[in-house]
Amino acid sequence: MYARTAPDGEPRFTEATVDRRTPEEIWWRCTISMVNPVCNYRFLLHTAEGPLWLTAAGLSRLDVPDTTDFLLTTYPGPPKWAADAVIYQIFPDRFARSGRVTAQDPEWVRRADWDDPIPWGQDGALQQIYGGDLWGVTEHLDHLADLGANLIYLTPFFPARSNHRYDATTFAHVDPLLGGDEALAALSAEARRRGMRVIGDITLNHSGDGHEWFQSDRDDFYYVDGDDYATFAGVKTLPKFDHRSPELRRRLYDGPDSVIARYLEHLDGWRVDVAQSAGRHGAIELNDEAARLTRATMAGHDALLLAEHQFDASRALRGDGWHGTMSYAGFARPVWSWLAKERSTEFWGVPGPIPQYGGADMAEVMRRFSALIPWRAFTHNLTLLDSHDTARFRSVAGRDHQHLGAALLFTLPGLPMIFAGDEVGVEGVHLEDGRRPFPWDRARWDEGTYAVYRQLVRLRREHEALGTGGLRWLHTGPDVVVYERATPGETLIVQVSRSSHEPMKAAKAAASLTGGPDLTPGAPMPGDGPAFHVWELEA
Amino acid sequence: MYARTAPDGEPRFTEATVDRRTPEEIWWRCTISMVNPVCNYRFLLHTAEGPLWLTAAGLSRLDVPDTTDFLLTTYPGPPKWAADAVIYQIFPDRFARSGRVTAQDPEWVRRADWDDPIPWGQDGALQQIYGGDLWGVTEHLDHLADLGANLIYLTPFFPARSNHRYDATTFAHVDPLLGGDEALAALSAEARRRGMRVIGDITLNHSGDGHEWFQSDRDDFYYVDGDDYATFAGVKTLPKFDHRSPELRRRLYDGPDSVIARYLEHLDGWRVDVAQSAGRHGAIELNDEAARLTRATMAGHDALLLAEHQFDASRALRGDGWHGTMSYAGFARPVWSWLAKERSTEFWGVPGPIPQYGGADMAEVMRRFSALIPWRAFTHNLTLLDSHDTARFRSVAGRDHQHLGAALLFTLPGLPMIFAGDEVGVEGVHLEDGRRPFPWDRARWDEGTYAVYRQLVRLRREHEALGTGGLRWLHTGPDVVVYERATPGETLIVQVSRSSHEPMKAAKAAASLTGGPDLTPGAPMPGDGPAFHVWELEA
Repeated sequence: MYARTAPDGEPRFTEATVDRRTPEEIWWRCTISMVNPVCNYRFLLHTAEGPLWLTAAGLSRLDVPDTTDFLLTTYPGPPKWAADAVIYQIFPDRFARSGRVTAQDPEWVRRADWDDPIPWGQDGALQQIYGGDLWGVTEHLDHLADLGANLIYLTPFFPARSNHRYDATTFAHVDPLLGGDEALAALSAEARRRGMRVIGDITLNHSGDGHEWFQSDRDDFYYVDGDDYATFAGVKTLPKFDHRSPELRRRLYDGPDSVIARYLEHLDGWRVDVAQSAGRHGAIELNDEAARLTRATMAGHDALLLAEHQFDASRALRGDGWHGTMSYAGFARPVWSWLAKERSTEFWGVPGPIPQYGGADMAEVMRRFSALIPWRAFTHNLTLLDSHDTARFRSVAGRDHQHLGAALLFTLPGLPMIFAGDEVGVEGVHLEDGRRPFPWDRARWDEGTYAVYRQLVRLRREHEALGTGGLRWLHTGPDVVVYERATPGETLIVQVSRSSHEPMKAAKAAASLTGGPDLTPGAPMPGDGPAFHVWELEA
Repeated sequence: MYARTAPDGEPRFTEATVDRRTPEEIWWRCTISMVNPVCNYRFLLHTAEGPLWLTAAGLSRLDVPDTTDFLLTTYPGPPKWAADAVIYQIFPDRFARSGRVTAQDPEWVRRADWDDPIPWGQDGALQQIYGGDLWGVTEHLDHLADLGANLIYLTPFFPARSNHRYDATTFAHVDPLLGGDEALAALSAEARRRGMRVIGDITLNHSGDGHEWFQSDRDDFYYVDGDDYATFAGVKTLPKFDHRSPELRRRLYDGPDSVIARYLEHLDGWRVDVAQSAGRHGAIELNDEAARLTRATMAGHDALLLAEHQFDASRALRGDGWHGTMSYAGFARPVWSWLAKERSTEFWGVPGPIPQYGGADMAEVMRRFSALIPWRAFTHNLTLLDSHDTARFRSVAGRDHQHLGAALLFTLPGLPMIFAGDEVGVEGVHLEDGRRPFPWDRARWDEGTYAVYRQLVRLRREHEALGTGGLRWLHTGPDVVVYERATPGETLIVQVSRSSHEPMKAAKAAASLTGGPDLTPGAPMPGDGPAFHVWELEA
C-alpha cells in the first residue's frame, strides 16, 4: 500500500505500513507532507488480481486522472460551530407578520392576505407582498427551538422592488418593510441569546436596476456600453457588477468598510446568490478572486461563507473561497431523481422530465460530485431537498417520500437546510408557489411530518458522526440504500428504502435510534418501505 | 437533443435540430455562443429509456460533473504546420558524430567509444560522452527524410555537466561540445531547406548548480535560505528557479530578450522539461503564469510549445499555456499496460509491476485522460512509446508488439514521436540504457521494423484524418481494438490486435492501406494477430 501525493507537481509514492487488522478490515498508516496549500493524494494497493487505485471516486483497476484525488487544504477551515448547524431558510415576506412595521408601502407593492394563494407566473406576482417581517421571525424563534434548527438563513433583507429582494436598491440598510436595521439587530440578539445564529443573503453578481449605485457609479460598477449594459440572464432589471472596479470591491466585499464586513455585527455569515457568475463576464474572470476576497474579509469573524451553485461547484471549492455551496447537483437533484413521483416538475432548467434513478444511481451521482471536492467542503455544503428556488419537495415526491428525503438530508454529509414550512407539510408545485406563507394555524400542520423532522433534527445534532463522520455506502439497490457514518467515537448505520425489498443480513449488533427493531448479527434487517431506520453500533 | 453550455457560469440549454439522417446515424445541428475564452459544452439526448448525457467521457445515463464536458477555447491555436508533424527525438550526444568538433573537453567528461555499452546505474555514467554533435545531425538528415520525420526535437544543447544536459550551466550559447551556435544555425538552416523544423528543450524549473546565474543572481533567481536552497526532487545539483523574480522571467521566458525568444531565430518551438513543477514551490503557485508568459513570448513566431507532464496534465491544457504535453499518462502508459511483455520494467515511478490491461482497458484509460482536455490539445499532445526518460519500448514489449505500438502511435490522435533508434530496433532496458548511440552500421538495423515505421509515418502524413480527424472506438476487446479516424473528406478504420481473435464483421467496404485484405460489407474482418490493419472507406 502506497500513498501518492504530488508535492510541487511531482508525483511521490510513500509506502504505508499495516496499523491494525480486524476480522473484516486492514488499516494502513503513513505520513505525507503537505508542501502546497492544496494537497491531492490517492492510494495504490497491490492485490493478487493486480494494482488498484483508490481515489475519492472509489476503487479503480485502471489508471485515473488526478481530478478525483482526495484533497487536503491548508486554508483556514469553516467555523467550528458550522458542523453542528441545522439551517432554517426563511423568505422574510412569508414567514411571520409582527404587526409592528409602520413603513409606508413603496409604489410597487401589491398587498395580499396571509392566506391568499400565490399568483405564480402571473404579471405582478413578484410584487405581491404578504407582509412577513424580521420582528415576526424573532417572535417565532420558539418554533425553531422546538424543531431544533440553530442557524437561520434569511433570503435578502435589503430594500428592493420585488418580494424576493434579489434586485436590491441599496445595501445601506435593512428594508423598512421588514422592520429595518432595528429588527435585524433585535433578531440577531435574540437568536444569539438562544444559541442560534443568523446568516444573510447577498448577490455579488448583480443589483437591481433601481440600486443607488446604478445611478451614482453606473460607469464604474457595471458593464455599461452606451444605453446598454450587461445583465444577469438577460433580465434588464438586474444589471451585472463589474468586479474590475476596486471601489466596487471595497464597498461590496473587500475589507472592513464593505457590505460583507459591516453586517457581520449582526450576522454569522453569508449565503452568496448566483455565486457561479459573480465576477465572470466574457474574457473577465474574477470569480475566484471575488470568493477569495470575500472570505478574507470575513476572516476573524468566525463566520460561515456559503454560495449558490446550481450545477457543478467543484472548481470553486478547492481554494480559499467559499466554505461550501448549495448542494443542488450533489444532493438535491439525485434525491429528486430517486424519489420524485411528479416527474414533469421543473428541474433546474434541465429540459425533459426528471430522470428515473434507482438508489444505486443516486449514490453514484452523489459520489461523482463529492469526489471532486475536499472532504471539508463536502461536509460543509448546504444540503437541501428544496428552497425558495424550487417547487416544494413534498409536492414533487409526496408525503411518504418527503420523509425519506428528510432522512437522507439529516444523515448524509452536509449542512442540512429546511425551507421554512417543509417541516409542517407546506406544498408548492413551482418555485414561486413554494414560497407560501407559513401556516401558523397548527390545525393546518401535518403533525406526522413535523414529528419526523423533529426526530431527525435531534438525531443530526446529537450524533457527531452525522456531521463530520466518514461515509461508506454499504449497500445500494434500486429501492434501498444502506450507509455508515462513523467517527472514532461512534458508528451509525442508516437504511432508507423507497419500497419493501429483500432484507439484507445484519453484520453487527446495533440499537435502533428511530424506534424500529434492533439489529442482531446474522439476522435479517428490516425489509419494509417506504421507511427509514437509523442504528448505532454497539461499542 | 440539446447542447448545454455555461456562459459566464450560468447553464444554458440550446435545442438542436436534425441536420440529416443516414441508415445508421442521426446528425443534429445547433449554434452555441462562445461567451468566455474557455467554453465547456455537453449534450442532452432524450431517449425512450430516459435522458442521456454526452460528454467527452462518453454517454452517461446519470448526471456527470462538468470536468468531462467538451471544451472549446478562443486562445490562438498551435501553428498550422504542427498537425502534420512527425517528431524525431534526438539526444545529441548519441545520434551522430561529425568529427568537426574541436572544443576542449571540460574536466568532467569521460570519453566513450560509439559502441561502448551504457554503464547505466554506475558512478559517472551521466558523465560518459559518446561524442555526437549537431553537425552530425545535419549530416544525417537524409535518414530523417527517408523515414518521413519532419520535426526534430533536440534534448538540451546548452552547456552542462552531464551528457543529458538538463543541468545547464548557461543559456547564452550552444555547448561547444555539440558544435556551438554555428552548428545549431547550420542544422536549422538545412532542416528548413528540406521542409523540416527543429524544436529545443529547456528546463524552466531549475538549472544546474554550475549555472552562471547560480553565482551571479543566486538570491534573486533561486530559493536560497542561507547555505541551503530548494532543488528539483532533492537533487543538490539542480537548484530550483524562483519565478517571482521579474528579472529571471525576463531573462528566461518573458519577452523578446528571453532565452525562449532569442533561440526562435533557429528553432520552431520548445519542449519544456519538468513543466509540471516550474514556478510551483510551496505556497508559491506561478505554474500557469509561467506557461502563459512563455506562450505569449512565442506569439507571432509560428512556433510550437510542448511541455513535459509525466502524469495528469489536464489542468495545464485548458488555458493559454502549453499547446500540448508529452502524453505519458494518456498514451504511453496505457499502451505499455496493454502490450508489455517484461512487466517488471520501471514504470514512471509507480511501484509494482506494469498493470495488465486488455484492449478495452487501454481505450478506457486513454479516454479518461483525453476527456479532460480540449480536442485541440488532444491532437497536439506529443504521443510516444518511449523517450530518453524510459526504457526502450522494444525491450519492454518485444519486436512484434513494438510494431503494434507503432501502429497505435501513428493512427491515434497526437503528434507522434520516434525516439531516434526506435525505427531500427535499438534496445535498452532502463532509461539510461535506452540512450544507446544510433547504429549507423545498417547491418545492425532491423529492416522489418524500419519498413513498418516508414510505412506508418507515410500513412500518418498522407492522411489528414490521422492528424486532426475525429476518433471513434468501434470495438475494444481484450486482444483487439478497432477505431475510426475521420474528417469530412476521408474515413479510416484501424484494427490493432495483440493476438488472433474472433473476427468482427465488416460494416462497409474499405480498401486496405497496409497491404492486407480489403473489407467487404458483411464479410469477416481479419482475425490475425499480432497484427495491424488500416483501411480507407470507399467514398
